Amino acid sequence: MAAVAVATRWWLLLMLSAAELGVAPAPQPPNILLLLMDDMGWGDLGVYGEPSRETPNLDQMAAQGMLFPNFYTANPLCSPSRAALLTGRLPIRSGFYTTNGHARNAYTPQEIVGGIPDSELLLPALLKGAGYASKIVGKWHLGHRPQFHPLKHGFDEWFGSPNCHFGPYDNKARPNIPVYRDQEMVGRFYEEFPINLKTGEANLTQIYLQEALEFIQRQQAAHRPFFLYWAVDATHAPVYASKPFLGTSQRGRYGDAIRELDDSVGRILRLLRDLGIAENTFVFFTSDNGAALISAPRQGGSNGPFLCGKQTTFEGGMREPAIAWWPGHIPAGQVSHQLGSIMDLFTTSLSLAGLEPPRDRAIDGLDLLPAMLQGHLTDRPIFYYRGNTLMAVTLGLYKAHFWTWTNSWEEFKQGIDFCPGQNVSGVTTHSQEEHTKLPLIFHLGRDPGERFPLSIASIEYLDALRRITPVVQQHQEALVPGQPQLNVCNRAVMEQDEPNPCGMWVWTGWVDGLGCSQPVSPAPHPPPPNPAGVLRMDVQPKLLP
Amino acid sequence: MAAVAVATRWWLLLMLSAAELGVAPAPQPPNILLLLMDDMGWGDLGVYGEPSRETPNLDQMAAQGMLFPNFYTANPLCSPSRAALLTGRLPIRSGFYTTNGHARNAYTPQEIVGGIPDSELLLPALLKGAGYASKIVGKWHLGHRPQFHPLKHGFDEWFGSPNCHFGPYDNKARPNIPVYRDQEMVGRFYEEFPINLKTGEANLTQIYLQEALEFIQRQQAAHRPFFLYWAVDATHAPVYASKPFLGTSQRGRYGDAIRELDDSVGRILRLLRDLGIAENTFVFFTSDNGAALISAPRQGGSNGPFLCGKQTTFEGGMREPAIAWWPGHIPAGQVSHQLGSIMDLFTTSLSLAGLEPPRDRAIDGLDLLPAMLQGHLTDRPIFYYRGNTLMAVTLGLYKAHFWTWTNSWEEFKQGIDFCPGQNVSGVTTHSQEEHTKLPLIFHLGRDPGERFPLSIASIEYLDALRRITPVVQQHQEALVPGQPQLNVCNRAVMEQDEPNPCGMWVWTGWVDGLGCSQPVSPAPHPPPPNPAGVLRMDVQPKLLP
Repeated sequence: MAAVAVATRWWLLLMLSAAELGVAPAPQPPNILLLLMDDMGWGDLGVYGEPSRETPNLDQMAAQGMLFPNFYTANPLCSPSRAALLTGRLPIRSGFYTTNGHARNAYTPQEIVGGIPDSELLLPALLKGAGYASKIVGKWHLGHRPQFHPLKHGFDEWFGSPNCHFGPYDNKARPNIPVYRDQEMVGRFYEEFPINLKTGEANLTQIYLQEALEFIQRQQAAHRPFFLYWAVDATHAPVYASKPFLGTSQRGRYGDAIRELDDSVGRILRLLRDLGIAENTFVFFTSDNGAALISAPRQGGSNGPFLCGKQTTFEGGMREPAIAWWPGHIPAGQVSHQLGSIMDLFTTSLSLAGLEPPRDRAIDGLDLLPAMLQGHLTDRPIFYYRGNTLMAVTLGLYKAHFWTWTNSWEEFKQGIDFCPGQNVSGVTTHSQEEHTKLPLIFHLGRDPGERFPLSIASIEYLDALRRITPVVQQHQEALVPGQPQLNVCNRAVMEQDEPNPCGMWVWTGWVDGLGCSQPVSPAPHPPPPNPAGVLRMDVQPKLLP
Repeated sequence: MAAVAVATRWWLLLMLSAAELGVAPAPQPPNILLLLMDDMGWGDLGVYGEPSRETPNLDQMAAQGMLFPNFYTANPLCSPSRAALLTGRLPIRSGFYTTNGHARNAYTPQEIVGGIPDSELLLPALLKGAGYASKIVGKWHLGHRPQFHPLKHGFDEWFGSPNCHFGPYDNKARPNIPVYRDQEMVGRFYEEFPINLKTGEANLTQIYLQEALEFIQRQQAAHRPFFLYWAVDATHAPVYASKPFLGTSQRGRYGDAIRELDDSVGRILRLLRDLGIAENTFVFFTSDNGAALISAPRQGGSNGPFLCGKQTTFEGGMREPAIAWWPGHIPAGQVSHQLGSIMDLFTTSLSLAGLEPPRDRAIDGLDLLPAMLQGHLTDRPIFYYRGNTLMAVTLGLYKAHFWTWTNSWEEFKQGIDFCPGQNVSGVTTHSQEEHTKLPLIFHLGRDPGERFPLSIASIEYLDALRRITPVVQQHQEALVPGQPQLNVCNRAVMEQDEPNPCGMWVWTGWVDGLGCSQPVSPAPHPPPPNPAGVLRMDVQPKLLP
């Protein structure tokens, strides 16, 4: 961290103001509240066209704030996206990827050896430089092992879990996922924190809501600027809701989960108003990746008019709902066509705090304040990776695919489908198809669903390719990939009361199939020593380093 | 018309009020303004989630009015839908269908012999009973021949054409489509009313806008209640826009057309405000059928998350954008989940005028005022027909398909696809598949995209079927089909200066293939005597009756 020279612009401003006015300084930088959903799709909110229109609070948030229809995550899977949000860097830089196979997504299952490297600078650590208190509520997903936990990477407080709420497990071959308060494990999912898979009932969103409200009130009372990262997961399979919300949605249990999250966001924003700090709190709502169509319709959401979903680099996999809210600063009811990225939340948050992003490394996030406050648009590319493979890039209204792939034929034949009901010939391919020499190019304005590739003989194609090529070349020439963190798994790293007897073998978890998800019906329970079955697992018996 | 006993509730109310107040009565029933788009899809407006969000006026109309996410047309093709709107009756009742083939859509090409029967009672004729002046601006589509024209069926004024703006034709074998002012032909498309197919430039929307504004101003000056049916067609292929709008949309030419229509709606609503009659004018915006995906992406729109498009009885073919606006009466910013139908505009308009619907015939339209003014929901079925075949029904959140069909294998192999990029096994079938004994049932709340049929072994399936079956039986038992109007075509009925030499043979036009549309690239021009080619034409050499 010594390498980071952060200019605390805010303090400078503060001191100048104090000097000018000749009074004791009172202002503080705005609070920052990032609301990150899990597997929620672009099409899941009323304001994004979901037909049942069951998100009145989020729709109102958009009416009072700014909507970003062209906002992207940094990876179609959870862990890498979350690493990208907190580091402002593509997962290929931070190491949140695998090289175990070509174009393979990977996340942090219980057995993962790697995690967020100490060399990465995370947003909460940087915000400390401007006096922020920070808390993560919910899912961490940047590594299980103690050295990777949030409090080791700048957060002051944590309530939540290192991983998805899969289960229930037997706590022998495989433990249930632990839940932490700060450094301390306070229970496990399905045990102290019950989730009823049959009814879908769980109180977790209410607990996460109370954690958020209490933290906000406490920081407000202490007159301390805060950073709250509310990383809830009710819309990730197995989806859940608390009793008052169960059975209330037209959309089934998935909709119940959305309704509870929408209600919770409404309560959080109301608290900010009630405490009189709405005008000093920047709030951003988004999701970690596209809806998991493999789990639809009962456990997965909607990507609206877009192609495919989670795990893919089509728009359905990476375009996200996004709303910015900051009354009195961001004008109400606006739409920004800025191409935005989850990594921008890093840079924008630093900017809000009066801090500069680190200068000793490549940062992919943009400061969105010019877009939000002055309506400026900045030309920038969006890169779509699977593993260490650059699958596609969007520049302006054009998207070029260098590789196309949904999921393998083997999986597809077994009913696993990342694009149910969708089939675009030569585009939604079940084998990895290379187009690096002549990319498939789509005009996302006319054809947001990526159904009609431009003719490679057209002038439009050539013009688009001419603009895209140097941007990709420049990106690739400058790219220094991080050490891949998601290559090696070992059951010995699972948090169990007893030593894990099977620590000698290594497997890579769900790097290919469902990634961070699990099938709605029986997951491997307990996982077989040499996992095989519905998912392609890329078993790689290596010795641990 | 003698058969209709209309109770003029409004006048009764008026006289009672006058008696109570002891003053001369001044109030008049609200003006009625129906804005009907052509081939515009559910997903084409920002408020319905279109990503480019280029419809600020319509989005604002929704914010000031009521949005209906579950609003349906009565047929996936233009002519039957428009007949349904103006009669309040399913096309199977009014005769706006064909029996030339099983489950075949049909419309009114230039050669059509039939049209709206004199026995049908149209909305403008009925509104006369409450003193309304009425005008249609734009596309009529209920028959070419003089006896079928709008002024023969209750309209006081007409500016527009009897058919789509296909062309240009040679005016020898086939005339260009005429444009009328009232009974008089004032020119033809591509001649006096130019449409530049190359640039997409046409001034028609501006002309239609001026016609609307002038009519509104004139009726307001005369203190006369008016019914204006604004049936514009810029979003029907070939799509067009006027110069100031060309090239302004992210979505290409289709988007340019939408932007001009959106701007026009904004101007109309502003005029109502400026004239001080907004609170006395009921406005409803909708479309005649789903977006024509066969023409996408350059000449066709978006059906959002729904399956397939125009010509099909999947949701993409028949679910429509719908906004009601009546300041001071309909509460602002509301969403109604009432299952609505284009036929409801008939009954609702009569209700607004204080009139009862005709009692001597079956009327399918509901009065939506209880939904709009008091938020009431009425349980009612939505029937989906192709020709005289009941393809599907929706009741509550369940939709049952009795027949599935997109378009034929022959067409599909030639590149004509009503569901591009979509393929749901056993659902988007290219042969006509019967499911009358065990319908395919979908839950439209969880699965609006009709991708996951319920298991026929599930209790949910059985419960849904148990509710749906008697509703369909009752419908079919009571149904008295009208005499089919769209079976017989004859070139002799084309409006030409010279007698048509080929009047002895008969064909049914585009009853199967593109229906009201034409292919973006070369249409049959002139049509061959025995039409064959890319479209299946159902040539049926019959003698005229």
